[in-house]
Amino acid sequence: MADSCPLCDKLSKLPGDELVWQFPHSVAFLGSWQYHIGYCVLVSRVHATELHRLDAKVRAAFLDEMVVMSQAIDAAFKPCKMNCESLGNQVPHLHWHLFPRRADDPEKLQPVWIGFDRAERDATEKARLQSPALPRAEIVARLRDALSRTQTATV
Amino acid sequence: MADSCPLCDKLSKLPGDELVWQFPHSVAFLGSWQYHIGYCVLVSRVHATELHRLDAKVRAAFLDEMVVMSQAIDAAFKPCKMNCESLGNQVPHLHWHLFPRRADDPEKLQPVWIGFDRAERDATEKARLQSPALPRAEIVARLRDALSRTQTATV
Repeated sequence: MADSCPLCDKLSKLPGDELVWQFPHSVAFLGSWQYHIGYCVLVSRVHATELHRLDAKVRAAFLDEMVVMSQAIDAAFKPCKMNCESLGNQVPHLHWHLFPRRADDPEKLQPVWIGFDRAERDATEKARLQSPALPRAEIVARLRDALSRTQTATV
Repeated sequence: MADSCPLCDKLSKLPGDELVWQFPHSVAFLGSWQYHIGYCVLVSRVHATELHRLDAKVRAAFLDEMVVMSQAIDAAFKPCKMNCESLGNQVPHLHWHLFPRRADDPEKLQPVWIGFDRAERDATEKARLQSPALPRAEIVARLRDALSRTQTATV
């Protein structure tokens, strides 16, 4: 655990309204931008800044969990594409953004960040991109249902 | 190999001016946006649209190669952060964008895509973001040198 790291802090609190699943090496949280229904952030339990700086066994397990989580999002919401992104520019603690892309998204050929950048200057756009088509609790329930078909429940 | 897939086509031709390294399960090409010096695109040899649809052993090997390539970029150019992204919105054949972020980039806290989106409407900006600080051949040579310290040369 690192001092002053927002993701270490989040892991120590596990906010109930965002928590989707606890894996052995990571924790999945429901993300803010639920226009991309099912969007999750998968946070490494170990504080590390880069994938290549993780111990090889821990890294392999963390990447397996990323794939399991992507598959669950895919199974629950049938997106036309998954986007898997590890940036960490603002919070350099390893985490994956797992964005399911909607077939009816007019911007589905673009990275999601173009819309989020626009939303920073446009409150209506921000509300549109953050509003879920289903209650957030229902999205979490669907993801947990998909995960429980392949994983031992830990949430 | 899939019909009409630009990346299957690229793998069959291996353009010499872009080729960085041939791994057993993927091939690394030098990307266009060399403002992010060392930026590579790592393309799966197998045509698949999603990571979770790859055979588990092939996937693990492909992800290991992604980590090896990230580490080589990191060793060669000492970025302040690596961004590892698998999107495939426009070309749904598995590939990783490996963007090293520069400490002197005024937009280093943002995803690279914001600048690329701006560049689509601004030729000067596009030229700035595509112009390498070193000749492209020199960038490739530095990456190969870093890779040859841990990998058996196949290029």
